[in-house]
Amino acid sequence: MNIRIYNARVLTMEQDKDIFFGEVHVKNNKISYVGTAENAPEDQWEREIDANGNVVMPGFKNAHAHSGMTNLRSFADDLPLHEWLNEQIFPMEAKLTPDDVYHLSKLAIMEYLTSGITTSFDMYLMPDAMAQAAVDCGYRTVMAGGLNNFSQSFELLEEWLNKYNDPEGLVNFQLGFHAEYTNSKENLEKLAALVHKYKAPINTHSSETAGEVEGCIERHGMTPTQLFNSLGMFDYGGSCYHCVYMTEEDIEIMAEKGICAVTNPGSNLKLASGIAPITDMLSKGVHIAIGTDGPASNNCLDMFREMFLVTGLAKVRENDAAAVSADQVLRMATVEGAYAMGLKNADVLAEGKFADLIMLDLNQPNMQPLNNIVKNIVYSGSKQNVKLTMVNGKVLYEDGNFFIGTPAQEIYAKANEIIERMK
Amino acid sequence: MNIRIYNARVLTMEQDKDIFFGEVHVKNNKISYVGTAENAPEDQWEREIDANGNVVMPGFKNAHAHSGMTNLRSFADDLPLHEWLNEQIFPMEAKLTPDDVYHLSKLAIMEYLTSGITTSFDMYLMPDAMAQAAVDCGYRTVMAGGLNNFSQSFELLEEWLNKYNDPEGLVNFQLGFHAEYTNSKENLEKLAALVHKYKAPINTHSSETAGEVEGCIERHGMTPTQLFNSLGMFDYGGSCYHCVYMTEEDIEIMAEKGICAVTNPGSNLKLASGIAPITDMLSKGVHIAIGTDGPASNNCLDMFREMFLVTGLAKVRENDAAAVSADQVLRMATVEGAYAMGLKNADVLAEGKFADLIMLDLNQPNMQPLNNIVKNIVYSGSKQNVKLTMVNGKVLYEDGNFFIGTPAQEIYAKANEIIERMK
Repeated sequence: MNIRIYNARVLTMEQDKDIFFGEVHVKNNKISYVGTAENAPEDQWEREIDANGNVVMPGFKNAHAHSGMTNLRSFADDLPLHEWLNEQIFPMEAKLTPDDVYHLSKLAIMEYLTSGITTSFDMYLMPDAMAQAAVDCGYRTVMAGGLNNFSQSFELLEEWLNKYNDPEGLVNFQLGFHAEYTNSKENLEKLAALVHKYKAPINTHSSETAGEVEGCIERHGMTPTQLFNSLGMFDYGGSCYHCVYMTEEDIEIMAEKGICAVTNPGSNLKLASGIAPITDMLSKGVHIAIGTDGPASNNCLDMFREMFLVTGLAKVRENDAAAVSADQVLRMATVEGAYAMGLKNADVLAEGKFADLIMLDLNQPNMQPLNNIVKNIVYSGSKQNVKLTMVNGKVLYEDGNFFIGTPAQEIYAKANEIIERMK
Repeated sequence: MNIRIYNARVLTMEQDKDIFFGEVHVKNNKISYVGTAENAPEDQWEREIDANGNVVMPGFKNAHAHSGMTNLRSFADDLPLHEWLNEQIFPMEAKLTPDDVYHLSKLAIMEYLTSGITTSFDMYLMPDAMAQAAVDCGYRTVMAGGLNNFSQSFELLEEWLNKYNDPEGLVNFQLGFHAEYTNSKENLEKLAALVHKYKAPINTHSSETAGEVEGCIERHGMTPTQLFNSLGMFDYGGSCYHCVYMTEEDIEIMAEKGICAVTNPGSNLKLASGIAPITDMLSKGVHIAIGTDGPASNNCLDMFREMFLVTGLAKVRENDAAAVSADQVLRMATVEGAYAMGLKNADVLAEGKFADLIMLDLNQPNMQPLNNIVKNIVYSGSKQNVKLTMVNGKVLYEDGNFFIGTPAQEIYAKANEIIERMK
């Protein structure tokens, strides 16, 4: 489809490029023009969208998610991570069917769209079901394996890696495992061998709680980051989710190997895990992206809330109101998220990039006055400001309505049915 | 106006009363019925609203605000409190006219309405301008004096106290002063005399930063809470804003005197002030309400973000994922806020109370499935869920539209004009 968006305040997220007034053109699933109205090429438009002075920018990248867990929102709360995981979450997950994961993932995708999220990096059981939900909705997803001692397998990881590996497609897959504490040393060594076989990045939960790090040191004589690195797992990049308890050496390893730290501040608060050392990691040059984590631990899939938390928690942790600027946070939520997922084509607004973009409503009281639009987005923005979310050239959400092939009420009913059956 | 809201999930916020399916009737500015459809009286309706299964509950009470500061949103950020206040905020505020405060307060009121806030407790320069804005919009406000060594006066405090003292009206006034560190000992003693003269509650910023408390101990040999109490200021109740650095004795004083601690977690993060000891205060029986603080320090006037922060920050501060339940937080945001403001008639949904209520949309992905509606509101809720905000029996906000007597665009234009003139 040929779409012209005009009268826009364009925020491309390219380095050192200021917001300018202009147009963004979309041809099929790619951006064909970003620039001023004066220089814009003429064309036949199937749709012309008057942005009315609103911001058009790259969609947010949710760099750590468990989309299939929407059934467990507000089901098990107010428990520390390990009790919550072992006593509440794992037993419920054992009852899930692929069909459940398909419908529950759609509910998460809907929520992502309301928050301007155009891609998520999803670690969950049964990636085929999540992949189908993404394709049916028209949503982009990168999935990571979640191997552990009791679910998924090396054969499945390789199968998925070979099946979902079209960089032009909506769905991709990366190697991944749940965490150190749910995998044997043998598993970790085999994973490192897979990394080398495919020269592929790997992804995992790491250093989320103090107890996890202590346990790893007891079991292996080193922190999770050091252990993974010592096994050669980081030789082709990847990302670590959470990174709350990090030593100086851990941070240096992350920087040197280009491993992305994906921070999940909402989840870290709610499970009382702690506050990540964002300032330390930034100062050492670690890539940092932002994730919502799953709806059972956060419980809200909202990039605006996470963005405010990243900077707010850094400020209070460092006792420095200048810690982590709005510009840095917005980069984490967009460009760095694309880096984490290996999506070279979904980072900024530029010709040839995927048409994964959002329009943010400035005609709302929380966005006024227009002293500084980036600060307004990061410090004051909310889901209410998301007027339009486009993925792969298609408008999937606009003015509160979803265009994902299934009526919203049908998805809500399914989610309620599934949790009622499982209770 | 006679309004019937039916097909509602009614959350009255009365103690130990579960959500039930039923109706809420409004006659003029009061609630005339809350109950099941079966028992509902018949009447002639000027409007009937099908709630479609959505939640109807009391509006949120923003228990600490500086509404007239909207011009400074995203203007001065990333600075610690005292530098921010003295070098950025006070010089700009010196340029404000009453007309500016009038328009800027309207912008804040609009934002409150989008977040389901039906009343705010406002401490700002020129209360007459804020009062006029509230009355013109149909919004309820309680104002507190903001006396300090260089602005407002005892004469003005008494004038306002006598002028705005109709408990049935939209605007009320309470005694108040900016803070210990901006007032001489003589001022504080005179304020205590006023408290006793009028047998009236008093309100102030207190114990927001470690430096403030240390300074107070140096100046007066005790903490702000102890100083105010020793002067007899707390003999007729009131509230203290922030309460981040509290000793055990401070907390005992607050509990004994029924002084409400108004927590402002978003602002405390953004200014790197710290995390308030909510759990300790709750366990000693201190009343706790929630405020957004002003748009120059937060920068978002959003009760949903503040509610999540209250519980999330308590969890991480106490290293206890069970700290501060969703039920407790929702009470703080409604009933306790009304307590802080002395609004006996705006706390719960019941016959004879003010018709200050909101409708929250459950037909949104972030509210599904319906495992626990209160948890959904506190952990997952967002401005996007606010379908309708009614104050004093009038719908002021519905489905994204404002009904406050002035077009939104006019208010946005004014706010931009004012800050551009002042820059």
